Amino acid sequence: MRAVVLRGEREVAVEDVPDPGVPGPDGLLLRVERSAICGSDLHLYHGGMLGVPGVRLGHEFIGTVEDVGGEVTSVGRGDRVLVSGVIGCGRCPPCRSGDPVTCLAGMPTAFGTTLDLAGGQAEAVAVPAADASVLRIPEAITDEQAVLLTDILPTGFLGAQRADIRPGATVVVIGLGPVGVFALQCAQLYGPARILAVDLVPDRLARAEALGAEPIDAGAGGTVAAVLEATGGRGADAVIEAVGADQSISDAIFCAAPGATVSVIGVSLNLALPVPMPLLLLKRLTLRATYASIPSTWPALLPLVASGRLHPEDVFTHRLGLSEAAEAYRVFDAREDGVLKVLLDPSR
Amino acid sequence: MRAVVLRGEREVAVEDVPDPGVPGPDGLLLRVERSAICGSDLHLYHGGMLGVPGVRLGHEFIGTVEDVGGEVTSVGRGDRVLVSGVIGCGRCPPCRSGDPVTCLAGMPTAFGTTLDLAGGQAEAVAVPAADASVLRIPEAITDEQAVLLTDILPTGFLGAQRADIRPGATVVVIGLGPVGVFALQCAQLYGPARILAVDLVPDRLARAEALGAEPIDAGAGGTVAAVLEATGGRGADAVIEAVGADQSISDAIFCAAPGATVSVIGVSLNLALPVPMPLLLLKRLTLRATYASIPSTWPALLPLVASGRLHPEDVFTHRLGLSEAAEAYRVFDAREDGVLKVLLDPSR
Amino acid sequence: MRAVVLRGEREVAVEDVPDPGVPGPDGLLLRVERSAICGSDLHLYHGGMLGVPGVRLGHEFIGTVEDVGGEVTSVGRGDRVLVSGVIGCGRCPPCRSGDPVTCLAGMPTAFGTTLDLAGGQAEAVAVPAADASVLRIPEAITDEQAVLLTDILPTGFLGAQRADIRPGATVVVIGLGPVGVFALQCAQLYGPARILAVDLVPDRLARAEALGAEPIDAGAGGTVAAVLEATGGRGADAVIEAVGADQSISDAIFCAAPGATVSVIGVSLNLALPVPMPLLLLKRLTLRATYASIPSTWPALLPLVASGRLHPEDVFTHRLGLSEAAEAYRVFDAREDGVLKVLLDPSR
Amino acid sequence: MRAVVLRGEREVAVEDVPDPGVPGPDGLLLRVERSAICGSDLHLYHGGMLGVPGVRLGHEFIGTVEDVGGEVTSVGRGDRVLVSGVIGCGRCPPCRSGDPVTCLAGMPTAFGTTLDLAGGQAEAVAVPAADASVLRIPEAITDEQAVLLTDILPTGFLGAQRADIRPGATVVVIGLGPVGVFALQCAQLYGPARILAVDLVPDRLARAEALGAEPIDAGAGGTVAAVLEATGGRGADAVIEAVGADQSISDAIFCAAPGATVSVIGVSLNLALPVPMPLLLLKRLTLRATYASIPSTWPALLPLVASGRLHPEDVFTHRLGLSEAAEAYRVFDAREDGVLKVLLDPSR
Repeated sequence: MRAVVLRGEREVAVEDVPDPGVPGPDGLLLRVERSAICGSDLHLYHGGMLGVPGVRLGHEFIGTVEDVGGEVTSVGRGDRVLVSGVIGCGRCPPCRSGDPVTCLAGMPTAFGTTLDLAGGQAEAVAVPAADASVLRIPEAITDEQAVLLTDILPTGFLGAQRADIRPGATVVVIGLGPVGVFALQCAQLYGPARILAVDLVPDRLARAEALGAEPIDAGAGGTVAAVLEATGGRGADAVIEAVGADQSISDAIFCAAPGATVSVIGVSLNLALPVPMPLLLLKRLTLRATYASIPSTWPALLPLVASGRLHPEDVFTHRLGLSEAAEAYRVFDAREDGVLKVLLDPSR
Repeated sequence: MRAVVLRGEREVAVEDVPDPGVPGPDGLLLRVERSAICGSDLHLYHGGMLGVPGVRLGHEFIGTVEDVGGEVTSVGRGDRVLVSGVIGCGRCPPCRSGDPVTCLAGMPTAFGTTLDLAGGQAEAVAVPAADASVLRIPEAITDEQAVLLTDILPTGFLGAQRADIRPGATVVVIGLGPVGVFALQCAQLYGPARILAVDLVPDRLARAEALGAEPIDAGAGGTVAAVLEATGGRGADAVIEAVGADQSISDAIFCAAPGATVSVIGVSLNLALPVPMPLLLLKRLTLRATYASIPSTWPALLPLVASGRLHPEDVFTHRLGLSEAAEAYRVFDAREDGVLKVLLDPSR
Repeated sequence: MRAVVLRGEREVAVEDVPDPGVPGPDGLLLRVERSAICGSDLHLYHGGMLGVPGVRLGHEFIGTVEDVGGEVTSVGRGDRVLVSGVIGCGRCPPCRSGDPVTCLAGMPTAFGTTLDLAGGQAEAVAVPAADASVLRIPEAITDEQAVLLTDILPTGFLGAQRADIRPGATVVVIGLGPVGVFALQCAQLYGPARILAVDLVPDRLARAEALGAEPIDAGAGGTVAAVLEATGGRGADAVIEAVGADQSISDAIFCAAPGATVSVIGVSLNLALPVPMPLLLLKRLTLRATYASIPSTWPALLPLVASGRLHPEDVFTHRLGLSEAAEAYRVFDAREDGVLKVLLDPSR
Repeated sequence: MRAVVLRGEREVAVEDVPDPGVPGPDGLLLRVERSAICGSDLHLYHGGMLGVPGVRLGHEFIGTVEDVGGEVTSVGRGDRVLVSGVIGCGRCPPCRSGDPVTCLAGMPTAFGTTLDLAGGQAEAVAVPAADASVLRIPEAITDEQAVLLTDILPTGFLGAQRADIRPGATVVVIGLGPVGVFALQCAQLYGPARILAVDLVPDRLARAEALGAEPIDAGAGGTVAAVLEATGGRGADAVIEAVGADQSISDAIFCAAPGATVSVIGVSLNLALPVPMPLLLLKRLTLRATYASIPSTWPALLPLVASGRLHPEDVFTHRLGLSEAAEAYRVFDAREDGVLKVLLDPSR
């Protein structure tokens, strides 16, 4: 079958690889129908410590169950399912309650980030720990919505949830890529009075405004100054950082009002990020980072998407065939052509 | 000056009464500019245990400070202010933090419900414990919005807050009078996937639908059956009861899904309301009633109203002069003429 | 094999019944080693709506796995396990996260309360939904401790948890039977300044005092008067009711301070319990009843018992053979001989 | 009158300074009876950015009200009171509810840290914003207990509260100085199964063990290795850092289990503390620092101290006269003579 394989720095290829099988009695084999490229895939694409050559990429995918192990009870052959992009052992209490990030058996793993767990930008994929990580797609959810429930909508949702937003609060969202857009939409679920949305790109600012936020151009004088001006010098009650750069995380902390929470969902690989402790102390801040426990979010997100309260599918700007993956990565990485989110179709 | 006085069962009169003064060093004298009639005023109007003849009615009012005691620091003469409809001692830690309902000095009191604390359906009113119960009205808030911040919007807000609504939840609101409408609007602040709104009156159901709820006609087969049908037999995650009748409180409990919260903001005077304990037990329910600590809600509600996220003023259907109070009570009690909420102008 | 069977009002017998088998691919067959009699067994023993003749009693038991279905992954033959006294479908998200009370497939069931789910006061028992309801007993936990983790310690724990006790609070526990004793011990986990323990029996009051509580004799003038006197007229911040009688639930509400929570874990079968709504309203109370989701409590309770912070085993006052079950029920029901909790040994 | 004045690096002197007066209508003049030296006083004593020469030191003190402004309602002349070591404007809603750290009027201030707010290591002190920052000392509280309620017991309490400790949790406390000891005692209020207490000093480890913790010698192989070994490689559910050094904050993060909270109460002045973001992300951690809002803790702490559940006074190892302040600072800074906490008596 064909799969997207990381070859080297900024180099991916669609290759023929051996067909996978059912990975054990608790797993299943999935025929992939839709797969997306995620901002965190770019960390591998850029090389560095995560970019192991040979990795089969992709952790956002849905499809149809082709075969299933004997212990699996929640789905069967022919079921259309979505899969958590991150999985754990599937058997410990945290995994069973939808929280693989705190898996008692060790570090959780994302599909497509290691040679041990092939990704889903492919025609098929082996899914272990199925009962803990797979969900039959309800009628009311479309394919494109379902793909977004495998990672980035849950990440945006948890980023908002962990920002401790209370009714009447002022919220800042820094970074309006796909995860930032979802964080913004999910922040609206917590009843803020205002959301200030920060980015450099006019398209993205316009999108945020359409979603009910006040756009702030980070280039025009700086994020912190703009947020402080917009809040009478006080800062925001909750800040969601969806970039992951040193500067933007620092900005997030400086934008925070006394007592606020700074929720980082941008992926930072900096092992020594400089944090201003006196500010954390004197403003009594809470700083959180969030690796999303995806299944834990489904009971909240499914009815919100099904009822039309959330419209995640609007983020897809590009729909390509799997065979076009190399070009898809290039465009996505270069932020060309107004790209926000790319969907791949393994049948093409 | 003129004031609305309770005379007997279903009888109020606008009478000349002595002018009030500053009620002590911690109080102030308010020239009333707008006053509203509340559903709970009808409990006095109907007589019964609360209906003490001679009481000057009214606990929802705003105006201008005419004189002020020496200990008051938060407002001064000429300030336009709104006043909490319920006050405590003003000095204990709960009162100072905006929660007079848990006042350490004893039972909190609502204006206009006792001979000891004259109400605000009058040209002027004496306001004790001013620093704890008075707020300067921000520029961005209109008079009519401000009146609604003195009792029923806070009550609706706390009713929603105490219903433990989580993102994605299904909520039921029973009773779509003014408080129910506000509970519905405030329930939207907590990110539910669905709100089922129950009433008998077509106008009220239409208003709820316009606010994003699914209308349920309580007359057509019963509230419980309709809610269970709409929820696949499971019931709702949160139920807000805004009527106060035995039947509707019972309905609220029967509409609750396992693990749900039933939040009662309808005023029930039943000292022996029959509650089905096996249901509470087997469904592990939480049942709450809420006497609103009004000042505690202002930090959340002011920015929500100022930013236009909440539009409470839409509830006013009737605007009359204070001199028309007797007719105003009659219409409001009879639910004539599509009345939802009545505003009185003491200058007329 | 032998099992305790309900024959009629206040009549149980040890009878020979057919050996059970593995109840399906998700279940297991348990050889029972210890079983306890619970206060809620007396509701069946007393007859009434729950007392169906022929029911095999018992929902508190531990033992060794004798055989196991093909889908079960968490335990195997020969494992020493404890079993949740209440189970659901075992497959829905709530069941998988340890909360069978909110099972999406319908009402959860307690072992030994219906003809469809035979109980564990027997030599063996069939356990469905094993992965969701069974736990391998850790080395550090004794048999007698393990038995108490199957129902009443979790119930006491959730009763305390759902009483919203904050550090510095004053707590009242009404009823010092085994569940009340556990509620008291678990209330201590939340840092109260004071616990007032109410009962009529001197032994029970002395036991509560040894656990750090202030004993209150309910017979000497009444619970409410005594609690109000002990709290300067204010009442308690949290009240745990562990009796289930109309009077004691009413007392619990009247003992509550403004803003308090009343947590009922006593089993009341009253479908029309009279509740004073004006008190709930004016004091802004929260009233909860709790049917315990037992597996959800294990992650907290296991380390507390293993580290010696909780000593549940102290409640056992009587240890008898299964063959003595009729006498055991009689003594337990009559509260003879200082009985607090009875343990049965199926090998005798 | 005499006061302790910072002269330069590691130099304090007891000097004659002008008598203070009532600092305004909302303030009072306090005759100081007991004053303590705090670990954070050493930040000034060591010089650096906080050590402004001429500052009158001391933010932990109690005494008798000598004179009072006209707006003050909560206390009067002759009252024995304790004073929050940190104050705000006293009038905004956060200040009124006991939370000066989030004062809407600007940055809160600690007594004795700036030339604008003279400290309480003196015979008398001017206290602004009295209603928001002063408390009459209850009969049941001793002088020495009261002194500890002005800063470090509240700080330890909030450090524990903000560590999100749940019943059954494993907690680590790093640093067993006075604040660490209080954090440990207050952590016990949240029902942990285990507390691991880390320090280098045998006396301090022995004290922690007497308080129910498991001592860990940080010198013998390192904090992180020892905590991981003690927790089966998983780390702790909650970590309280009470040192403020780069290494110990880093250790705290590396000791944290997935999903844990790291609560920093040690004072770090590092504006670029290196934080390992990938760990925060992959383990989904929460990092908090806490500048204590002292009055907010009194409703919880007063009954805990009054009932004997907390014994803060045990930390005092040295009691000296105010005239001996220079020697007191030297001993405290040098950690000579087993010193844990020093009390000064202004009458000597």
